[in-house]
Amino acid sequence: MIDDCLGAQRSRKIRRALRHCKVTIFCLVLTVVVLRGTIGAGKFGTPGQDFAGIRDHFYYRKRAQPHRVLEEVQTTSSNEKTGADTDTNSGTNNYNEFDINKILLDEKSDDSKRDPNVPYSLGPKISDWDEQRSRWLKENPNYPNFIGPNKPRVLLVTGSSPKPCENPVGDHYLLKSIKNKIDYCRLHGIEIFYNMALLDAEMAGFWAKLPLIRKLLLSHPEVEFLWWMDSDAMFTDMAFEVPWERYKDSNFVMHGWNEMVYDQKNWIGLNTGSFLLRNGQWALDILDAWAPMGPKGKIREEAGKVLTRALKNRPVFEADDQSAMVYLLATQREKWGDKVYLENAYYLHGYWGILVDRYEEMIENYHPGLGDHRWPLVTHFVGCKPCGKFGDYSVERCLKQMDRAFNFGDNQILQMYGFTHKSLGSRRVKRVRNETGNPLEVKDELGLLHPAFKAVKVSSS
Amino acid sequence: MIDDCLGAQRSRKIRRALRHCKVTIFCLVLTVVVLRGTIGAGKFGTPGQDFAGIRDHFYYRKRAQPHRVLEEVQTTSSNEKTGADTDTNSGTNNYNEFDINKILLDEKSDDSKRDPNVPYSLGPKISDWDEQRSRWLKENPNYPNFIGPNKPRVLLVTGSSPKPCENPVGDHYLLKSIKNKIDYCRLHGIEIFYNMALLDAEMAGFWAKLPLIRKLLLSHPEVEFLWWMDSDAMFTDMAFEVPWERYKDSNFVMHGWNEMVYDQKNWIGLNTGSFLLRNGQWALDILDAWAPMGPKGKIREEAGKVLTRALKNRPVFEADDQSAMVYLLATQREKWGDKVYLENAYYLHGYWGILVDRYEEMIENYHPGLGDHRWPLVTHFVGCKPCGKFGDYSVERCLKQMDRAFNFGDNQILQMYGFTHKSLGSRRVKRVRNETGNPLEVKDELGLLHPAFKAVKVSSS
Repeated sequence: MIDDCLGAQRSRKIRRALRHCKVTIFCLVLTVVVLRGTIGAGKFGTPGQDFAGIRDHFYYRKRAQPHRVLEEVQTTSSNEKTGADTDTNSGTNNYNEFDINKILLDEKSDDSKRDPNVPYSLGPKISDWDEQRSRWLKENPNYPNFIGPNKPRVLLVTGSSPKPCENPVGDHYLLKSIKNKIDYCRLHGIEIFYNMALLDAEMAGFWAKLPLIRKLLLSHPEVEFLWWMDSDAMFTDMAFEVPWERYKDSNFVMHGWNEMVYDQKNWIGLNTGSFLLRNGQWALDILDAWAPMGPKGKIREEAGKVLTRALKNRPVFEADDQSAMVYLLATQREKWGDKVYLENAYYLHGYWGILVDRYEEMIENYHPGLGDHRWPLVTHFVGCKPCGKFGDYSVERCLKQMDRAFNFGDNQILQMYGFTHKSLGSRRVKRVRNETGNPLEVKDELGLLHPAFKAVKVSSS
Repeated sequence: MIDDCLGAQRSRKIRRALRHCKVTIFCLVLTVVVLRGTIGAGKFGTPGQDFAGIRDHFYYRKRAQPHRVLEEVQTTSSNEKTGADTDTNSGTNNYNEFDINKILLDEKSDDSKRDPNVPYSLGPKISDWDEQRSRWLKENPNYPNFIGPNKPRVLLVTGSSPKPCENPVGDHYLLKSIKNKIDYCRLHGIEIFYNMALLDAEMAGFWAKLPLIRKLLLSHPEVEFLWWMDSDAMFTDMAFEVPWERYKDSNFVMHGWNEMVYDQKNWIGLNTGSFLLRNGQWALDILDAWAPMGPKGKIREEAGKVLTRALKNRPVFEADDQSAMVYLLATQREKWGDKVYLENAYYLHGYWGILVDRYEEMIENYHPGLGDHRWPLVTHFVGCKPCGKFGDYSVERCLKQMDRAFNFGDNQILQMYGFTHKSLGSRRVKRVRNETGNPLEVKDELGLLHPAFKAVKVSSS
């Protein structure tokens, strides 16, 4: 009797358990499937990609090292904020070219298809570029390298990965970033080249700009200055015209400080996220001298150690183009120094961390056209990687501040047409002027509709 | 005894049930939470937004009507493909301006803040724009409206929503689309204005371009031709220069056919996704005549019925700018016809459905610079809405084909520098030329590096 009772129960128990399990298992499976799609396959074993900051869009190596990046960012920002000054590697700066060539010859990396015993080169050696170029300019008077007195023909070069961002919202910020550059460049008569191709797989990451820049200099002799700008940098002063005349005797202009580069050998003594390079033999030469630490794999890894030993406050990570430039200038000042202009009278590059919280204050006290701490020409979101995988909340801060920077710059465009953003944090716009029947009598306060610096006397040919 | 047995069972049953339920409920909750994030809140009651095609990025009204859009697309494509010719509304084309004004006066829509009894206007009436503008041009010789013989100063205007796309990959295609326009415009000496602001909430959606265009014409008297281009249109012939001389007596150039517009009153007799508008009084006048059907809410809805009755093959949906233009020209040919040039000798607008599958054939048999069916100037992804919510697989087809169109155009840019995409479907590029020590002796086969149509004689002022 009891046995029957228990026997019947057992079978019922089992059936009931099964019924419950079906639902449970179904839910679990659904959850996993959906989560996989949301968080990204990478987390589930499929090889993912790492973009070390938007500026490193070209970065193709399939691996992930978020901590390295984070470390880099934190170091950078803390240094730039506090200007901390503890030399942790005094006396270790005796590393020189020879050792780099040694590394090149030691190179046995599998990453590279070319003969590891042949030092990397950006292309065939060219030593008469100045002659070739000036001959071409004479033969092509319709493509002058100067479009006005002290107004060189400038090509702004930027770009991003041909792949959609891993963090999908990243593409929206790339879009805003190029819209921002289109606006500044239209106002200042600058042409834009937006790159989405990786021309040299070996020079992926921060190094991709080098082969690209060389290619563009050689293809466009009419271009006098090439302006490299990272995709995570935005123009925040639409009225500021670069003081070209100041650079008439310089070939390479970066934001930086002589003492920090030449004396302290500080790896953030200059920034390579926004710089001006004059077309000429000198440019080809410094690109050749800059490139050797770039090839990915063992060379870049080993060179990274060299740079960390040689430079002040540099965290441990593979060789980056900025450290390499500091190293090059610090170790070969006599060779390059006289043609390099380290600019800090205005923000050719401006670190976002020290600027974005001051926009309201700037609006309160100053006006566009100053370009410096009062109204920065460029706000550069160093270390923000909105295009990378969803990171910690710092990415959220980045996005919020990139919106503010965009709107801060965009307000200067909108004012020309009588509009402004409802607030620095708002996408929406509102009128600041009523329409008139005599639109040409209205002068936009910044005079950006028809600025003198853009005006060019054109005689129909 | 049995009672005890059963009593004990009952309590055990309950405990067991509870244990099972916990897991099940947890999973269900997790699933819902994650699904909500993935599919988008819209599906769960939060108001979502509808973008009727990338071209309708400006579309802000919170509602969803995917079927309407789909219907529109299908009709469009089937018509453009088969050129189907069944007149379903003969004899109903006796609708005229008066009735539209009647609609305006009947307007009681809540959407609109302005007095519904005052017909909508793009701005204060201007009747002497030609005089104002020519005076300005005389006073500002450094901003000529012609930068060469038969070379007008052109401003290409496009744009997209200030908000990230609902379908995140959409922003990546907007980015590729503007990169594509930057390339064409750099080669052809055309400036770009990328709009991300909704200047007039009433004119959201396909109508947003009207207030924007008027504002730009009045702010830039130096611009001779404004070229509107939807964000879902891409240049696929980088070598084709618009035959400006052909339009010396025209003010408005659209892709279309006289018979389809003036005789058939077919709503796809022309396309307003890519057109040229000459700056002048005439432009302001036709914008004023074009705008009345635009204000969202009751006006646009009622006007939509008018247009569907009056035009051939038009599906039932609210008034769109294209149908309104067909209607305007068909009902007032004598007033506008002589200054409107309906171009079909090349693809100022090219419907993607009939082009994208022929790219390989074009590469096989033809070359850039033709602009027509052999090598289309523009491939326009009418009805694709990569920025909208994930749709049926047709969106997938759109994305794949947009990649192909982009690469097809991009190959003409890359060839200048000695590269090409590995295939029309591939983001990756490969070399097609070896580097040389005499880069200036290499001529890119299309002659796009320094094209005659861009060369301009500049005399330093």
